[in-house]
Amino acid sequence: MDIHDLIKSLKESNDGKIVMLVADGIGGLAQEPGGRTELETAKTPNLNALAKIGVQGLSIPIKPGITPGSGPGHLGLFGYEPLKYIIGRGALEAAGIGFSMTDNDVAIRCNFCTTDASGNITDRRAGRIPSDESAAVVQKLKVIKIPGVEVIVEPVKEHRFVVVFRGEGLGDAVADTDPQKTGVPVMEPKVHAGVKCAASEKTAKIAKEFHDQAVKILASEPKANNHTMRGFAKKPHMPSYEELYGLKAACIAVYPMYKGLASFAGMTLVGNAATLDEEIDILEKEWKNYDFFFVHFKYTDSRGEDGNFDEKVKMIEQFDKIIPRVAALKPACLVVTGDHSTPATMASHSFHPVPTLIVSDLARTDAKDEYSERAAVLGGLGQFEAMYIMPMAMAHAGKLGKFGA
Amino acid sequence: MDIHDLIKSLKESNDGKIVMLVADGIGGLAQEPGGRTELETAKTPNLNALAKIGVQGLSIPIKPGITPGSGPGHLGLFGYEPLKYIIGRGALEAAGIGFSMTDNDVAIRCNFCTTDASGNITDRRAGRIPSDESAAVVQKLKVIKIPGVEVIVEPVKEHRFVVVFRGEGLGDAVADTDPQKTGVPVMEPKVHAGVKCAASEKTAKIAKEFHDQAVKILASEPKANNHTMRGFAKKPHMPSYEELYGLKAACIAVYPMYKGLASFAGMTLVGNAATLDEEIDILEKEWKNYDFFFVHFKYTDSRGEDGNFDEKVKMIEQFDKIIPRVAALKPACLVVTGDHSTPATMASHSFHPVPTLIVSDLARTDAKDEYSERAAVLGGLGQFEAMYIMPMAMAHAGKLGKFGA
Repeated sequence: MDIHDLIKSLKESNDGKIVMLVADGIGGLAQEPGGRTELETAKTPNLNALAKIGVQGLSIPIKPGITPGSGPGHLGLFGYEPLKYIIGRGALEAAGIGFSMTDNDVAIRCNFCTTDASGNITDRRAGRIPSDESAAVVQKLKVIKIPGVEVIVEPVKEHRFVVVFRGEGLGDAVADTDPQKTGVPVMEPKVHAGVKCAASEKTAKIAKEFHDQAVKILASEPKANNHTMRGFAKKPHMPSYEELYGLKAACIAVYPMYKGLASFAGMTLVGNAATLDEEIDILEKEWKNYDFFFVHFKYTDSRGEDGNFDEKVKMIEQFDKIIPRVAALKPACLVVTGDHSTPATMASHSFHPVPTLIVSDLARTDAKDEYSERAAVLGGLGQFEAMYIMPMAMAHAGKLGKFGA
Repeated sequence: MDIHDLIKSLKESNDGKIVMLVADGIGGLAQEPGGRTELETAKTPNLNALAKIGVQGLSIPIKPGITPGSGPGHLGLFGYEPLKYIIGRGALEAAGIGFSMTDNDVAIRCNFCTTDASGNITDRRAGRIPSDESAAVVQKLKVIKIPGVEVIVEPVKEHRFVVVFRGEGLGDAVADTDPQKTGVPVMEPKVHAGVKCAASEKTAKIAKEFHDQAVKILASEPKANNHTMRGFAKKPHMPSYEELYGLKAACIAVYPMYKGLASFAGMTLVGNAATLDEEIDILEKEWKNYDFFFVHFKYTDSRGEDGNFDEKVKMIEQFDKIIPRVAALKPACLVVTGDHSTPATMASHSFHPVPTLIVSDLARTDAKDEYSERAAVLGGLGQFEAMYIMPMAMAHAGKLGKFGA
């Protein structure tokens, strides 16, 4: 019996709500040894008030030392074994624009790029062409026809777009065509080295045909005159939140990728927020309609990725300000966490564990009265893999029965 | 190689004794955020003296968030993977009365109940009929004969009794006949929905025949005029303590269920104690005869289940009083733990991790000088799954060799 079977067999329903507030990349590092992290620098009176009545610890996104991308990071938060359930980037990108994949689909995340007269890449993101310009170019690609498959092309943000091939017998073991550097041409779509897979050979051939037609159509574009293809992916299969936890789950997020991930878990994407305040407006409005709310705040990660310590501190303070509105809704269990750390000093995701706080009447409170990396080390939850946050949240909301007599 | 294979391959013997003192459900919760738990409220000078020279931590009974029943809770304490070794309730109950199951047996936990003239249940426990009255009624059922199988009927406590069918080709995938409510009849024994199993069909048919004969015999009983059947179970297969650890193990317990669990692990049930003091008398008396002693104290759990905070505190203080007698025997390794938490505020088993203390000359003592939930958070053992307590106990008793050269 694995943990998913166990949770499925023990789930119970009651009227309590679970809220998971994810401040993306909230964990950080000090700027000098012994110094304060972004979270420890920020003024967070509201989070600290929760820490006083809750219990905290450190969640390890995947395994010790492993830095997750947003995909595995969130799968862990949602309680799925992140080494078992792998979602391809293409599938994630497709879901993030609200595209419903079928079992016959292979989705690919594409980037417009700029190539010179000899076909070598000069800009891997086509000058980060604005979304409206990009969408107009994507529109031109919709004429592409390939015998035997349906071809679907949809814009995402800026230089990004999604291509989906829909047809029988397509595989997704195809390597990225982005060489990850300039001065060389876009690579040809090929099945992963060492893999024998006729279905993926078929996909690679279709992808080559798509690219050939696309470069002809794009020839006269000033910036977006070529494109790369990444993350060939079929639709992932995982148990839904309803199936696993018996929870009617809602996702409140601004960015497509998080909506995409949540939709694979069977969450309903509610509202259309552009700011954190609007996300909480939606949370309040939808409170009666769902059992579980995943609320995603992006900018802690963004400013960390920018390498901007002070701005990340401000984003954490902005995050702190909405806490009273969430607490006022009186969830049976409130979880505050992140999908990974994004230390501004590293300007990237990192492997460091993430301060994670649980507030509930059933919490065994610890001695800590601030929410921070230092406090979390000494918190009552200890250190644990992120995939156990959901079982703990279910337990703290009184939604898990007893295992065995 | 799994942990059991590893331990088997590394086990070494010496003269040192291991004592595992289990205060059932000892972990608790404060009555208000930031308050003291039952254990933190109790005056426990003897346990605190051990904490000063030992090392403590928090054991997670199964996995984070999972509340165990006594079965999985104790399997974890005994070092078995509790998600791998599942013991059916009937088998547990049979073992608990000292009944030795064979591989041809299916054991069933039965409850006398009271039904009205139309056959609907009016009391699921037959007024909790006293043990002596119940045993007399069980005696009457011993006349039941069913062609092709041996039928064994034994009393347990109050309204409970065990039925064992012994014969070739019997399965245990049979659903409980207890409808879990009054006002409806006892259900007919049937194979679990969706399961195809001829062996279990055979058992279900035999069970129906047993129930038909039983209701005729019981017709004139004032209270116990009917019965339900639960937890159909074959004998579980797990490596014994001898095989796994090379330990000659003794169980000292008052309640049948814990004796039953210990017997599946191959422990010898010694003595016939009715109180904790008598249990320690037996421990002293049998000291030379065994390598390992599992000593079970029930009442910390019972008072927690009652929701009685103050009485649970008293039970913990009672438990504390026997500590000097155990310590005086100078075990090579003394473990103090519980199979789960039973917070009085919840009046039930819970998922909260359990303060666990190891005292041994090999313990790396931590800075804590009291045994409690708060101290355990900061203790030297950290947080760990209960199934690692036995490997740690073996190691602290110097009974585990080096892995690899």
